Amino acid sequence: MADIKFSYQGTCGFSNSEVYSAAKKLAPEIQMMNEAAKSGNYNDERSSINLPADRGSVKCILELAGKFTNAEYVVVIGIGGSNLGAMAVFEAIKGRLCSSPSGSNAKMLFADTVDPDSITGIGDIIRNALKSGKKIVINAVTKSGTTTETIANFLVLLDIFKRCEPDYRNCIVITTDRNSKLWEIAVREKLHILEIPGKVGGRYSVFSAAGLFPLKAAGINVSDMLKGAIEMRGQCLSNDIEKNPAALSAAILYLHYRKGIRINDSFFFANDLESAGKWYRQLMGESVGKKNDLSGRAVNAGITPTVSIGSTDLHSMAQLYLGGPYDKYTTFTRVQKFRNSVKIPSYRELVPLAPKIQEKGMTEIMDAILKGVQAAFRSGKRPYSEVMLPEKSERYIGQLLQFKMIEMMYLGSLLEVNPFDQPNVEDYKKETRKILGG
Amino acid sequence: MADIKFSYQGTCGFSNSEVYSAAKKLAPEIQMMNEAAKSGNYNDERSSINLPADRGSVKCILELAGKFTNAEYVVVIGIGGSNLGAMAVFEAIKGRLCSSPSGSNAKMLFADTVDPDSITGIGDIIRNALKSGKKIVINAVTKSGTTTETIANFLVLLDIFKRCEPDYRNCIVITTDRNSKLWEIAVREKLHILEIPGKVGGRYSVFSAAGLFPLKAAGINVSDMLKGAIEMRGQCLSNDIEKNPAALSAAILYLHYRKGIRINDSFFFANDLESAGKWYRQLMGESVGKKNDLSGRAVNAGITPTVSIGSTDLHSMAQLYLGGPYDKYTTFTRVQKFRNSVKIPSYRELVPLAPKIQEKGMTEIMDAILKGVQAAFRSGKRPYSEVMLPEKSERYIGQLLQFKMIEMMYLGSLLEVNPFDQPNVEDYKKETRKILGG
Repeated sequence: MADIKFSYQGTCGFSNSEVYSAAKKLAPEIQMMNEAAKSGNYNDERSSINLPADRGSVKCILELAGKFTNAEYVVVIGIGGSNLGAMAVFEAIKGRLCSSPSGSNAKMLFADTVDPDSITGIGDIIRNALKSGKKIVINAVTKSGTTTETIANFLVLLDIFKRCEPDYRNCIVITTDRNSKLWEIAVREKLHILEIPGKVGGRYSVFSAAGLFPLKAAGINVSDMLKGAIEMRGQCLSNDIEKNPAALSAAILYLHYRKGIRINDSFFFANDLESAGKWYRQLMGESVGKKNDLSGRAVNAGITPTVSIGSTDLHSMAQLYLGGPYDKYTTFTRVQKFRNSVKIPSYRELVPLAPKIQEKGMTEIMDAILKGVQAAFRSGKRPYSEVMLPEKSERYIGQLLQFKMIEMMYLGSLLEVNPFDQPNVEDYKKETRKILGG
Repeated sequence: MADIKFSYQGTCGFSNSEVYSAAKKLAPEIQMMNEAAKSGNYNDERSSINLPADRGSVKCILELAGKFTNAEYVVVIGIGGSNLGAMAVFEAIKGRLCSSPSGSNAKMLFADTVDPDSITGIGDIIRNALKSGKKIVINAVTKSGTTTETIANFLVLLDIFKRCEPDYRNCIVITTDRNSKLWEIAVREKLHILEIPGKVGGRYSVFSAAGLFPLKAAGINVSDMLKGAIEMRGQCLSNDIEKNPAALSAAILYLHYRKGIRINDSFFFANDLESAGKWYRQLMGESVGKKNDLSGRAVNAGITPTVSIGSTDLHSMAQLYLGGPYDKYTTFTRVQKFRNSVKIPSYRELVPLAPKIQEKGMTEIMDAILKGVQAAFRSGKRPYSEVMLPEKSERYIGQLLQFKMIEMMYLGSLLEVNPFDQPNVEDYKKETRKILGG
């Protein structure tokens, strides 16, 4: 099957020559990306693009994960960049419907914020599973090793684990920066440890141990995902700008930004991609939402990422999107072939209600709705582009995530901001520390 | 316990006198709302406020729902206004974690868009449950009776149901406008039928049969919810503007809109309120996203609603919120008392990682994070208000939903748009019909 496809010509709000000319500004950045790729090391913040092809490290992660493929639950304790990637991939491949009886693989549970009701629910599931002899693996992921929410949830679940599972040390995997405080403690406590390379930021870490370990343990074909990522990296590092989807996509976002269009809606026509939307929301929110530009000038840059699900959100947001302010650029994502093929049964009595859908395939109806929306966007001069995923398979999800991460590095470059830091997060953290310390 | 509390003074970006003076413009609208309330009928689009106190109709809905309280699954087939209210309330009360083993009540399943993988998953669950003798109720909700996605999903599930459940007619409840085509068919097919009053729009219908039937069948204390709604209606219809939370909240949104601030982030510090956020997103998106104002002038009005979850999204959006453009007004919602009280256990070895959280209550940590964020918002001159929910109980959720629905009617009035219609949705529907018909 062909790769994922990015289309924008005639709908994105700019002429091809405007898009190319903006994208061409990226030449020096593409050069640096290629140098980072060539080095194969992790000395540069761009080097997250080296993760998928890092055979030694991938092998080591997958070997450890292989020990847990009999687990009933994979519990990821992490927040933000430490769990959004794993959540995005797992839901895209296995489906959002967590109670689906079809899956023989592990279920994933995500403990992120300090919500007492959520952690109690997860704790109950773990306790019951352990009592009935099922295997569980707990993966605590925190790059700094000191994330408040992650340590709090880890302490709560560790307490349950220690009471119910004598071999608990063997079922805990710590993923963190080498030489973080947590790393030292994990060594001392004889827990399994995996590393996130220092220069790889949380929102670019899905192909590091942060994503690979829990996904492999939960039965995801991680090798196919990495293969897809490597394929897409090739395209997105191309100097032939007209064939470089990341450069083109970044250029369009940049052109809209300069025109004052500062909302980007990711509109996914597939329920299982909602978490991919949340992953992208972090990627864009943190990477280009910046008080200062690279020269230190106050700019308050940023594009507000929103996530919509089709056709559901047409029944909630289409009125605003088609009638409201001209302040959005939309990126539709559609799936060409779903896992299941469903034909609408004919039922004579109900024909008058929806005469045109009976005996049709459900994907055909979804496509007709999307095409109808795109026609309405064109009539209303609402700019959009489209990403087409042949399937929600590991390979194409790997392509999608790599495409978007490189796009975001390019967008940072065009906007002249640092796409790798998040200095203002400290603004609230220091206030919270004061309150907790008092 | 006291009611939910709306706070804005000193943080919302406007002085009290500015807020009061904008809110005072609502006097004629408040007058009309009081008249609609006094009439007790459904002759006016404002009359959704009469639903909670409509004893006859509520009794009839609850009696029918009472027949299904032994159901293992309540399957709602509906989209937009036809399921967002039920989803919001169910998740707020019972929790998002659908696999929680603690609940003895029914689980709810939502079939909304025409996603072949989602409906296959729901179909599998239904088939397995019916085969093992469990009871299921299917509630198809469509005001017009002709919503494409709803009819498609209904046909697919009906097909399964007819094969596995001889008494299937008795387990199907149709909720629709009286005299829609679907109503006629349901009569002919001897299915249970419930009515949504004609003038009550989908996004204002949570206290009609659309919300009440499935929620009651799933074990929600609907009477408490309605009690909360009635309490809040009293406050929100008050002519004493300084004590009317809906009028004050609408006035602040309006003042920001006039200043060019056209993104409103609903930032919930509780995982289980994410669906309440999606419900509000529809309410705001459709109610004030308008091409034309009341006089027919093209205005492209609208505020883009976004939903954030604390503290999770601080690790994804805080950088943008604190460093990015000044284009947002934030409404924090916090929960004073969660269902569970969780203390962080002390574990000597881990103390160095997060010295200030051990032995603290988890709610206390969540509160410290929220207070830290609010302090950072104040330092950065980022405007916000706060809604405090004493608990995520039926009563307070009822209060919250009624507060927000009346707020939105007032906001429409201030913006001089019709908060009850959604004319531009037809723009894509007619295109889709062309494609499906071809």
